[in-house]
Amino acid sequence: MDIEKVNSMDFGEFVDVFGNVIERCPLIAAAVWSQRLFSDLEDLKKHFFAFIDALPQSGQEGILRCHPDLAGSELRRGTLTAESQREQSGAGLTTLGTDERLRLAELNAQYRARFGFPFVLAARLSDRAAVSRELARRLLCPSAQELRTALGQVKKICSLRLADLLHADPAKL
Amino acid sequence: MDIEKVNSMDFGEFVDVFGNVIERCPLIAAAVWSQRLFSDLEDLKKHFFAFIDALPQSGQEGILRCHPDLAGSELRRGTLTAESQREQSGAGLTTLGTDERLRLAELNAQYRARFGFPFVLAARLSDRAAVSRELARRLLCPSAQELRTALGQVKKICSLRLADLLHADPAKL
Repeated sequence: MDIEKVNSMDFGEFVDVFGNVIERCPLIAAAVWSQRLFSDLEDLKKHFFAFIDALPQSGQEGILRCHPDLAGSELRRGTLTAESQREQSGAGLTTLGTDERLRLAELNAQYRARFGFPFVLAARLSDRAAVSRELARRLLCPSAQELRTALGQVKKICSLRLADLLHADPAKL
Repeated sequence: MDIEKVNSMDFGEFVDVFGNVIERCPLIAAAVWSQRLFSDLEDLKKHFFAFIDALPQSGQEGILRCHPDLAGSELRRGTLTAESQREQSGAGLTTLGTDERLRLAELNAQYRARFGFPFVLAARLSDRAAVSRELARRLLCPSAQELRTALGQVKKICSLRLADLLHADPAKL
C-alpha cells in the first residue's frame, strides 16, 4: 500500500486499516485522519506520535492501560488482538513453560501495582529471556521515567505496525 | 453497583466495565481511572466529560468517527457493540423497511461527506421517525455547531450507559 492509497481513504477505511497501530486505541487513528494528506510513512507516523505527546498524562497512561500483559491471561484466553498475538508469538511468549509463565505473571502484577499500567514492550524486537530481564529492570525505575520509557515502546510498536501496513523496511524505522 | 465498588476496581476491571461508555474508546475509561476515587455517579461522569472537552478538535472528531452509522452496514453485518445494538434496536432501527433504510443510508452518507464524521444521536432518547428528521435537520447546520451538537450526543449516550451500569435512574440525568 502506498501513501496515495492511504490519502484516498475515507475515515471508515482509515480506521479499519490503522485502528490498531496503537493497541486498542482506534480513537487515535480516527483523530489522525483529520491531519491528511500525508506525504509519506514518516509523516503519518509523526502525526500518531504528536497525538500521543499532546495528551494529558492520564490519557498517556490510558493508552498503556489498553495494552495486554505479555504472556498474560489474554494470551491464554485467546482474546489478544491479531497484531499482539503475532508479536507475542514471535517473541516466543506463547510457548513458555509453567515456571517461566508464573514468574512473568508475578513480575507483571508487581509492575501493574507499582505504576498503575501494564508493562509494555515492543515484543518483536525482543525474545522471552529479554522480556523477563527487561521487566525486572524497569520495575525498579522511577515512575516519571518509566512512563516515558513505556510510551517510547508504544511508539516502536506503532512504527512496526505502520511499516507492516505500508510494506516499508522495518530496519529503516 | 455502587461507587465503593467502582472505586475498588483495578484498571483492568474498570476498563472491562466502563470501556464502552464512550463508544469504542476504551482509552477514555482507561484515562479516567487515573482520577479515582470518585464521589458518585455525577463525579465519574464529570471526569469522562472533562477528558472529551480537553481533547484537541481532531481527538473530538476521532471519538465521533469511532461510532457506527445508525441503521447502517454494521447493524446489517451484526458487528455493532452490544450497547449500540441495544440502543438502535430500542429506537426501532433494526426493523426498518427497505425504503426507510435506503433513505437513512443516503442521509448518513451525505452527513459523513459534509462533516467528516458519522451522524451521532442518543438513539435511546429517539425513535425511527425522529432519527431521520433530526439527521435531515442537522445536515444543514454549520460545521462548528454540528461538532458541538454531536459531542453533546456522545455525552448523553455516556450518561445513559453509566446510569445503566450503576443502576441509577436515567430520568435524573
